[in-house]
Amino acid sequence: MNDRVYFPKWYLRGIRENPRTSGPLVKKFVNLDVRMYIRFLNWVPAALKMPEQELIQHAGLDSAVYIRIYLLGLKIFVPIALLAFGVLLPINYTGGNFHIMSLSMKDLTYGEIDKFSISNVPPASKRLVAHIIMAYAFTFWTCYILYKEYKIVTDMRLHFLASQSRRPDQFTVLVRNVPSDPDESLSEHVEHFFRVNHPGQYLTHKVVYNANKLAKLVDQKKNLHNRLIYYTNKYERKPSKRPTTKTGFWGLWGKKIDAIDYYTKEIEKLNKEEDAERERVIADPEAVVPAAFVSFRSRWGAAVCAQTQQTRNPTQWLTDWAPEPRDVYWNNLAIPFVSLNVRKLVMTAALFGLIFCFMIPIAIVQTLANIESIEKVLPFLRPLIDRGSTKSLIQGYIPGIVLKIFLLFLPMILMEMSKIEGHVAVSDLEAKSAAKYHLFLLVNVFLGSIVTGTALQQLKEFLNKSPSEIPKTVGVSVPMKATFFITYIMVDGWAGVAAEILRVVPLILYHLKNIFLVKTEKDRDEAMDPGSLQWPITEPRLQLYFLLGLVYSTVTPILLPFIIIFFAFAYLIFRHQIINVYNQKYESAASFWPDVNRRILIGLMISQLALLGLLSTKKAANSTPVLIVLPILTFWFHKVCKNRFESAFRMFPLQDAMIKDTLERATEPQLDLKAYLKDAYTHPVFKGGQVELMEIDDEDDIENHLVATTRSRKGSQAGTTEGSPEDRTGIYAV
Amino acid sequence: MNDRVYFPKWYLRGIRENPRTSGPLVKKFVNLDVRMYIRFLNWVPAALKMPEQELIQHAGLDSAVYIRIYLLGLKIFVPIALLAFGVLLPINYTGGNFHIMSLSMKDLTYGEIDKFSISNVPPASKRLVAHIIMAYAFTFWTCYILYKEYKIVTDMRLHFLASQSRRPDQFTVLVRNVPSDPDESLSEHVEHFFRVNHPGQYLTHKVVYNANKLAKLVDQKKNLHNRLIYYTNKYERKPSKRPTTKTGFWGLWGKKIDAIDYYTKEIEKLNKEEDAERERVIADPEAVVPAAFVSFRSRWGAAVCAQTQQTRNPTQWLTDWAPEPRDVYWNNLAIPFVSLNVRKLVMTAALFGLIFCFMIPIAIVQTLANIESIEKVLPFLRPLIDRGSTKSLIQGYIPGIVLKIFLLFLPMILMEMSKIEGHVAVSDLEAKSAAKYHLFLLVNVFLGSIVTGTALQQLKEFLNKSPSEIPKTVGVSVPMKATFFITYIMVDGWAGVAAEILRVVPLILYHLKNIFLVKTEKDRDEAMDPGSLQWPITEPRLQLYFLLGLVYSTVTPILLPFIIIFFAFAYLIFRHQIINVYNQKYESAASFWPDVNRRILIGLMISQLALLGLLSTKKAANSTPVLIVLPILTFWFHKVCKNRFESAFRMFPLQDAMIKDTLERATEPQLDLKAYLKDAYTHPVFKGGQVELMEIDDEDDIENHLVATTRSRKGSQAGTTEGSPEDRTGIYAV
Repeated sequence: MNDRVYFPKWYLRGIRENPRTSGPLVKKFVNLDVRMYIRFLNWVPAALKMPEQELIQHAGLDSAVYIRIYLLGLKIFVPIALLAFGVLLPINYTGGNFHIMSLSMKDLTYGEIDKFSISNVPPASKRLVAHIIMAYAFTFWTCYILYKEYKIVTDMRLHFLASQSRRPDQFTVLVRNVPSDPDESLSEHVEHFFRVNHPGQYLTHKVVYNANKLAKLVDQKKNLHNRLIYYTNKYERKPSKRPTTKTGFWGLWGKKIDAIDYYTKEIEKLNKEEDAERERVIADPEAVVPAAFVSFRSRWGAAVCAQTQQTRNPTQWLTDWAPEPRDVYWNNLAIPFVSLNVRKLVMTAALFGLIFCFMIPIAIVQTLANIESIEKVLPFLRPLIDRGSTKSLIQGYIPGIVLKIFLLFLPMILMEMSKIEGHVAVSDLEAKSAAKYHLFLLVNVFLGSIVTGTALQQLKEFLNKSPSEIPKTVGVSVPMKATFFITYIMVDGWAGVAAEILRVVPLILYHLKNIFLVKTEKDRDEAMDPGSLQWPITEPRLQLYFLLGLVYSTVTPILLPFIIIFFAFAYLIFRHQIINVYNQKYESAASFWPDVNRRILIGLMISQLALLGLLSTKKAANSTPVLIVLPILTFWFHKVCKNRFESAFRMFPLQDAMIKDTLERATEPQLDLKAYLKDAYTHPVFKGGQVELMEIDDEDDIENHLVATTRSRKGSQAGTTEGSPEDRTGIYAV
Repeated sequence: MNDRVYFPKWYLRGIRENPRTSGPLVKKFVNLDVRMYIRFLNWVPAALKMPEQELIQHAGLDSAVYIRIYLLGLKIFVPIALLAFGVLLPINYTGGNFHIMSLSMKDLTYGEIDKFSISNVPPASKRLVAHIIMAYAFTFWTCYILYKEYKIVTDMRLHFLASQSRRPDQFTVLVRNVPSDPDESLSEHVEHFFRVNHPGQYLTHKVVYNANKLAKLVDQKKNLHNRLIYYTNKYERKPSKRPTTKTGFWGLWGKKIDAIDYYTKEIEKLNKEEDAERERVIADPEAVVPAAFVSFRSRWGAAVCAQTQQTRNPTQWLTDWAPEPRDVYWNNLAIPFVSLNVRKLVMTAALFGLIFCFMIPIAIVQTLANIESIEKVLPFLRPLIDRGSTKSLIQGYIPGIVLKIFLLFLPMILMEMSKIEGHVAVSDLEAKSAAKYHLFLLVNVFLGSIVTGTALQQLKEFLNKSPSEIPKTVGVSVPMKATFFITYIMVDGWAGVAAEILRVVPLILYHLKNIFLVKTEKDRDEAMDPGSLQWPITEPRLQLYFLLGLVYSTVTPILLPFIIIFFAFAYLIFRHQIINVYNQKYESAASFWPDVNRRILIGLMISQLALLGLLSTKKAANSTPVLIVLPILTFWFHKVCKNRFESAFRMFPLQDAMIKDTLERATEPQLDLKAYLKDAYTHPVFKGGQVELMEIDDEDDIENHLVATTRSRKGSQAGTTEGSPEDRTGIYAV
């Protein structure tokens, strides 16, 4: 029964059959077979068995590299933990600071954990040299592992790209900000420009249309069509009774009418509207957006065009690699260059405001959502609320719930902010919102836990302190918060991973949807869809564990085993999840790795500065010049990594393009590339109307295969273009 | 007589004849003709008369744009001064703070200037709103002018590049870090790589040789040859007596011998050595450096290669535009990629040390160079020193002189540091040392004057202060230092410009050289050479005046007229100098403008932060959020400028390349580009030995026209390759 929740990927691939169980009702919901629970742990060896090469083929490179982050955590922290336990724990334990202190001030109580931490080493002790040496050792080890991992991931990416079969985005470049020309249409202008400036390489292009309204109509029709199928199925099963519906909202009220007739008529009406709108978009020169997908005869030609500047004015004819067709975020294609600068400025200010003032709106909501106002709005709840116990419960929980709700919506808010910034690929959008989320967690969770008070208060405090005071403030609090973070790792980390394998939320949602929403087989498929890994949320959270591990490695090494258990457990579980559950929407070939590497290095630098601050309060003032070298070296290491590897994640080298081109020319000399690229970059809403478009193409000979953009902010529309385009052609063909 | 010092450019161009004056000896050194001194000012209208287009043709775009910086200063500060005098001066003057203060503390004396400054406005006065509004007005005006100027310079540059005639660097790309191949020679490897990956575009290439020793030999021979000519001339004038020389150092001691015979023999000996070395370099595969100049059939092909990544490994086959042949810094071509990263790190640390600890070595030298140690080293000076007056004079002046000498050598030290960083073009080297010098002046002259004490003490103080304290410390001191900076502008700025037009130092040097060193006509030409504008030194100094003007525009506007006079005066004089004196070594087509723009914006931001600090001490605390917006907006404006214009200074757009290629193909269809490029990128030391090289070329058919690099740190060798290559061919042909 729940198989579809735990192994949806296999259903999506059509490998598992729909189980047609029809046992007693109880069995349907509660699994009474005890063996099942034992078998439940079978996935552990299964998840580990699949070799990496097969994993890449099965789940894509993005997922395969994503779980390597957990492995990376193990690689970094297991040797660090061994070293720290061997060297630092005995040194700390025999430090005897608390013995001295407990004699002087009896009231301070220290936990057993603190005996193993640096706090137990008395100030100005010679023992602190060990901590400095260990800081160096841990830094070099972390950098060494990061460098090796970066190299491995780069090789994996390059190998993946090289062995990839032909894809439209290998030949295509996205051109933005095409200047208008008084004598030519946009399409002609694009063609002439590239014919002249990339002679022999230009093949074809597609103009982008603003199909905002059209996309809405198509969405509506899809919905109606789904209902039609539902009622047709119902009628087929019970031919004795024509199904009926009501004309009002969601079929809940209004006049009762024959459902099949009604929806057939409605669809026909929409069909006509859609045709009219489609013709308008094609005919109206105003509907053309100054952007185009330009395709070249070879990968070499596309690589050249993507990497070079076209004209004197760098704000016009901006060329960059076209995102994978599934990855295009159509809504942002029309944003002009000037507006991009302003948008970025505004969003940076907004992010700053969000991070440092995020408690303010929550506090407002919390005061508004108090008992009195609830009673006012929903007076029928009054008798319930007025009972004493309920009242205190609500008053106690509402602030926490409001905060949780806000945190739940935070990734979505950050995603919307990234959308406003104007990135044109979904993968870009996710990378940018991940960066924002990382910053938020760093300030509000890490710093916020260490230095109590809201982020705004912290900022005020920090601005009024000297720069050398900041590491001190953080450093001093670090050892005191070890117990808190151990709890955090267990509650958020371990329990979060356990919830992930049990898929509690999706399980509930799936069953809710099944009961209330699912009407046709297609609906069920959609309800079952597990979505993608959501790495823009999980990856920044994960970085917090790297940060904690690095910060506490020298201070309270006893925390490290908890981190290691988290990484090991999470590695296992996510390996299982990417094999059996998640279904990636697009493939970016691990293009997020530079971000991962950078963020771990940020964590490393924070850990070094915190240690610096801590030791300077330990009256080991001479340690400052020795320790200040570490963050500088780390920053330099970041630069080295960037120079050495990052271009492999941003550019496509000409040599590789040439090799692939030559190979293809030798093996498939008859390949009709133009036909292959014909519909690759067509907006999903135009995929159904190909017949009409073909005719227009034949007429004017310029290949303006219609590509459209919607200006709506709905997002989900482009974001959820899952499945191959062929899937949906069938729907529209009706 | 001094004509050669004041108008050397015309001599270098061969327009002015050598004056053969032979009047009385006194007249030779002291000009007795009073009219000359009146005529002396004639250059002012003459300097202004030349239209800009002609100026560009005469002096190059670099120089023409350089003097626009002074004009930019006028454009920014004249309206700011008018506005400040109209609005701020009356407000400050009637502020009456000093009236109040002088009642309370009689001992404080304020100058008349302070009455016009913001210090005269009492704390928490409403009048301060005017200063805030003015800060906004000045910021917007400065940004507006900067944007307009950036646009003009960009257009000038693009127009200049477009109208430029054919140049070898338009077709050539510098490839560095060519990986070694076991099966092929480096030259073959380069050729095969580019034939495969840039098919149809690759034309030819030149391997770079390490010709360190050879360059030294050529230098020696040049020196001997010069002496030979000197003695031959001497003999021709007085055929009765064969000139003699001595074999020892500089012909000062040793055996007396016949000079012409001796030098002829020596030159022959060197010729043989040189030939042997040349053959060794050509034959020895070890002498080949993993770099090459690759030329393409078209500008389009070169533009594509320069802007794209060639292989997976971004540390190999690094391509970039080849510098102009005169601009190549041969010594750095062989530095491997890994070493570049380390070098940059070390040099950044060294620069930091230099800036913040520059007083330390000077103090050491100052203590070493005291009277006692001078007496020890040079005991014969004792009687002179021991006289009381001399002693105190020396003791008073030595520290100042040591500091002056250090400051004189500073640009050279910074240039050496840039050379170690590994840039391959002289223009790059100059840009980088200018950036270092700017930072040095900012910290040690501006901040150092405002906050007294050495930079290291300042740094310590700043690190112990909170970030919000730093603008306060600076801001409070700013109005107090107005008088000091007015003096500075007059002493350093005005007097410096006056010294520039009088060319005091070059005048003395020229006459000294003429008496002691000049032996032949060629020597005299070299002594006369005025060198280039040295903008890596003058431009950062100039930026100081922008900074002062912007900082004081809201605080003490009375300083602005001094700045304006400086800019106007300097504009006039430098316009004259670039027309009549300086002779640019290379043409970078104003590629330094992004740096100029950035540095002015840095100055603007410093001025905003200083005002912010100042007002926060004036108890106008509410002003902080209003004023903190300004530096953020300025930074954003910098980003906008960068996005909008900078690529025009870094890249060559494909469209422009294509236009020039097409035009050339139409006008000169028979052009033999290969022949044109044959010797363009040949190391100067190989230019003389072309005959031998030609033969080798014919033999192996691969176009390895020899190009060499010297590993010596002499620098001057590549830096002073002035004049066209043909000039020197004649010398070696003897």
